Amino acid sequence: MFYLGDEIATIKLMPQLRQNIITGEWVVIAPERAKRPSDFVSAESPKPSLGENCPFCLDNELYKKESLSEFETKDIYVIPNSFPAFVEDPQNCSPRSFKVEDGFYTTRPSTGGHDVIIIKKHNLQIFGFAEHIWEDLFLVAKRRYSYYRKDCNVRYSMLIYNQGARAGASIYHPHAQLMASNIIPNQISKEIHGSQSYFEENGTCVFCDLLAHEKKQRLRVVEETESFLVFTFYAARFPFETWVVPKRHSAHFEQQQVSLLRELGQLMKRVIGKLDANLKSPALNFYLHDSPATVGKADYFHWHLEIVPRVSTYGGYELGSGTIIDVLSPEEAAKYLRQKSA
Amino acid sequence: MFYLGDEIATIKLMPQLRQNIITGEWVVIAPERAKRPSDFVSAESPKPSLGENCPFCLDNELYKKESLSEFETKDIYVIPNSFPAFVEDPQNCSPRSFKVEDGFYTTRPSTGGHDVIIIKKHNLQIFGFAEHIWEDLFLVAKRRYSYYRKDCNVRYSMLIYNQGARAGASIYHPHAQLMASNIIPNQISKEIHGSQSYFEENGTCVFCDLLAHEKKQRLRVVEETESFLVFTFYAARFPFETWVVPKRHSAHFEQQQVSLLRELGQLMKRVIGKLDANLKSPALNFYLHDSPATVGKADYFHWHLEIVPRVSTYGGYELGSGTIIDVLSPEEAAKYLRQKSA
Repeated sequence: MFYLGDEIATIKLMPQLRQNIITGEWVVIAPERAKRPSDFVSAESPKPSLGENCPFCLDNELYKKESLSEFETKDIYVIPNSFPAFVEDPQNCSPRSFKVEDGFYTTRPSTGGHDVIIIKKHNLQIFGFAEHIWEDLFLVAKRRYSYYRKDCNVRYSMLIYNQGARAGASIYHPHAQLMASNIIPNQISKEIHGSQSYFEENGTCVFCDLLAHEKKQRLRVVEETESFLVFTFYAARFPFETWVVPKRHSAHFEQQQVSLLRELGQLMKRVIGKLDANLKSPALNFYLHDSPATVGKADYFHWHLEIVPRVSTYGGYELGSGTIIDVLSPEEAAKYLRQKSA
Repeated sequence: MFYLGDEIATIKLMPQLRQNIITGEWVVIAPERAKRPSDFVSAESPKPSLGENCPFCLDNELYKKESLSEFETKDIYVIPNSFPAFVEDPQNCSPRSFKVEDGFYTTRPSTGGHDVIIIKKHNLQIFGFAEHIWEDLFLVAKRRYSYYRKDCNVRYSMLIYNQGARAGASIYHPHAQLMASNIIPNQISKEIHGSQSYFEENGTCVFCDLLAHEKKQRLRVVEETESFLVFTFYAARFPFETWVVPKRHSAHFEQQQVSLLRELGQLMKRVIGKLDANLKSPALNFYLHDSPATVGKADYFHWHLEIVPRVSTYGGYELGSGTIIDVLSPEEAAKYLRQKSA
């Protein structure tokens, strides 16, 4: 039995958003993703399952049942996550669904959507994606962003990728995920507030200024194309943390033209190839930041991708202080990444 | 060669605080802790070194050179970290040491202090600490907090512990660390701002209210003594995240009486024992939160310990959104932890 606040249930439960009463930050409690507390006993880093019984190799029956075929391409399926952190809104956009639990804590249902964007070919890791797979990945994501943008309940969509067990991947079969949430995630709130106050102070977009600075200084630049600059981030939270930023100011990912997303796909193949060549297939994540679905034009915000190799382990200071100790300078990281291409 | 902003050096460098220009958050770039970018190639979770040549088994010469003997007890040494994230302030408390790098980014030297608090006995893991070791650990920490409180450069001290490679421990020999920084860490800023605004709104300490609520509801309580309540946190960022909170309101750790810290030591032995018994020697961190050294009395803040077992792995959504998906409900975790004692 799971206890979720005042509700007790034995079967699949709604995931629940809970607010930290001290800091105001949200977490999602999604207990259906784990079976029992004892599953955590002697927990090693998860070993991604290989081979047969792969849940992402869809047989005909599953394909018919699960696949969102209007979003399918030659190389990619989209299916709903079977263990969603955000579920379809049962209240259909009721104006306010906050709840004070036991007269003290603030909670609400964790609603929205949770897609798995599956590369059809089982035996392919991110380092082996062909250009057309990369291109398709961003085109499919654009269509799913547009889809969720029309959902009156969704406040934010985020495309993410987990490569390798150390980066949180629990299934070997290559797949991205898209989380569409009824809240603005904590980190996005911080970026929005920060970039808004930068705009108020300077009258410019902080990302545009950052681009101009990095482009001029070139200490941290890893790669450049007509429309994108790729550089290691000055205040990196991870060794080799690498940002991919479009040169033209735009707040919303799903408004980008197909040609730009094709350029992004081709570029990502090269950037991930560089990480592979220089770090030998590191575990890594990437994720996309853009402006919330509820915001129209935003002079202060600028969509971008962040890539974070998982080659270090946070200790108690990082978790307790929130102040990350990064043991590699971003300048040295960029220099190293410029050495070899895939 | 490491590049740190506009300075190029071949030898040991000052660690550097860098501010994220978008969110305002600080990171520490401490490149001397890693040797070369190539050290990250095919990086596995670090394997803590065992056996001979242990840097924390001090021979006579090292002992004389390194040990801060006035803080030593029968079971514990204190030495400065050889790869400090925060170094002694060379400018001796100059009023302002911020610097704008290349006319754009904000940086400053990462100063303060970085202690290693070593349990003398090499072959002992945290699960085997005797009561008197636990007691000594908090008494030594109290003395080091008092020491740093007198340092005009230090703004915040934090005691932390890393148990196991998955929790960031790189050396097997049991040791805590104390980081004394010239900034208020990001997470502490959030807790301070949050608890201040709770106080302004309610006229009470959020931690005191939280204690009263948990004590009454008991869904998440794991253990209780005369002076402490131990419970899983409602908005947990980790499965089995467990807080140890003193019942009496007090903002500063180093002002606690010896008898209370002895009670804390005895309690921690039992709580860590419970985690060991129920989760079989999990990797874990704990860290201490209290009010900054520069603040006197604080009605709104309440010192406490947080224990976070490292039995799950963050993926791209957690890192990209800052919104943690916790796959175990804190209520279920508490129930599970109440089962067995060490």
